[in-house]
Amino acid sequence: MRVDMITLFPEMFAGVFGDSIIKRAVDKGILDIHFTNFRDFALDKHHQVDDSPFGGGSGMVLKPEPLFRAVRYVKETTAECKSRRVLLMDPGGAAFHQEKAKSLAQYEQLVFICGHYEGFDARITEHLADEAVSIGDYVLTGGELPAMVIVDAVSRMLPGVLGSEESAPTDSFYEGLLEFPQYTRPREYKGMQVPEILFSGDHGKIREWRRRQSLRITKENRPDLLKKANLTEADRAYLASLGSGKECPDSFR
Amino acid sequence: MRVDMITLFPEMFAGVFGDSIIKRAVDKGILDIHFTNFRDFALDKHHQVDDSPFGGGSGMVLKPEPLFRAVRYVKETTAECKSRRVLLMDPGGAAFHQEKAKSLAQYEQLVFICGHYEGFDARITEHLADEAVSIGDYVLTGGELPAMVIVDAVSRMLPGVLGSEESAPTDSFYEGLLEFPQYTRPREYKGMQVPEILFSGDHGKIREWRRRQSLRITKENRPDLLKKANLTEADRAYLASLGSGKECPDSFR
Repeated sequence: MRVDMITLFPEMFAGVFGDSIIKRAVDKGILDIHFTNFRDFALDKHHQVDDSPFGGGSGMVLKPEPLFRAVRYVKETTAECKSRRVLLMDPGGAAFHQEKAKSLAQYEQLVFICGHYEGFDARITEHLADEAVSIGDYVLTGGELPAMVIVDAVSRMLPGVLGSEESAPTDSFYEGLLEFPQYTRPREYKGMQVPEILFSGDHGKIREWRRRQSLRITKENRPDLLKKANLTEADRAYLASLGSGKECPDSFR
Repeated sequence: MRVDMITLFPEMFAGVFGDSIIKRAVDKGILDIHFTNFRDFALDKHHQVDDSPFGGGSGMVLKPEPLFRAVRYVKETTAECKSRRVLLMDPGGAAFHQEKAKSLAQYEQLVFICGHYEGFDARITEHLADEAVSIGDYVLTGGELPAMVIVDAVSRMLPGVLGSEESAPTDSFYEGLLEFPQYTRPREYKGMQVPEILFSGDHGKIREWRRRQSLRITKENRPDLLKKANLTEADRAYLASLGSGKECPDSFR
């Protein structure tokens, strides 16, 4: 997959892309990342990329021309890419989630437009990007961090990036529930015990216990996820037995 | 505010923290960021921080001792901080949002625990962190990017970080609606026009148009936000007039 970052601050990416899963994907030749500074496409002598908003108001707005030109440049120099998605990093965009990461992983090329300052001229949002994406309901200084987040999440979906020991399919959100609690050595630490069931050797019971813990944690922390989760009759019966409060009916705590 | 990052990969933060709003907050003395590598607190000869899960399963789990020791070290060496919050970066945690950024900005110290690999031993989640936080419903390789996202969002809430021209209070999500479209020069670009109303000089009309655009965009992209937004009678009447589809009844498009 080819990734193009259109940004005023390419140096922001060095730490994250020089480490972690993304570095590994680049080293394996699975990911190919390029940077385009859209200030280079502001053709006035001050290389101005923003201007004050029409109709009044504080803050600055990113001008259309440098970004339209930068995207055109990227498209023309990567004409060999058969499928491409141009993503605008925008707090007003649609919410990014795991299913979206999976679908973006199908493209041959992803182009990220990262803004800064108050926002984009709306003609960029409406006519230049294929879609506007938000990573969450909070305000960030620029689109660089959201672009890094999306590249990380999408990279994990590309074949060959994760080792077998990291097996993406058991990760959180894969079955629409939060993950069950995990424990490792030591069996006791500062008086805190690992639940006995994990030493029972009964894999059926352990599987059932883990499923119930997932249901319980999801109900406690993210009840909104239960509506969309794939639940069995037994799951529903267990959830009903938990009652409505936050009390924990079994041995976990 | 003092920020402590407890991570195996401190070098990942250089690009983001060396630039942007965070760099400015550090330069102004408003933010003071420290790194602690919890591998230094793994006392066996291989400095092992993870181990296989009890009860079976693939993947590795972060062991409790190195993280408990690292957090104790940070607490003991920063005893002067009067208010402190220990945050675990965890996809199973509560969703981070703008209100949370505001409330975290009240603390004198934030301690971030950034994991990698499959997950944390549940004793860390239950007993070491004050709360587990997730930046969105997607799977990332580690907690470093979420920690950077939270530091960026929280920094913007600290007095003196944003210049007056960047005025946080008009940002997206502040009034529970997405932002209205902004436009700047040129008035026409490649046949795409700026809406006439913005040149009317009638500030009351412009304000009303912007409010309606915010309502329309929020209804189109994030209808879930409308339930919690602070709406007037006029807002509700306008929303009702939009109908249920995605069609756009006014001059915007």
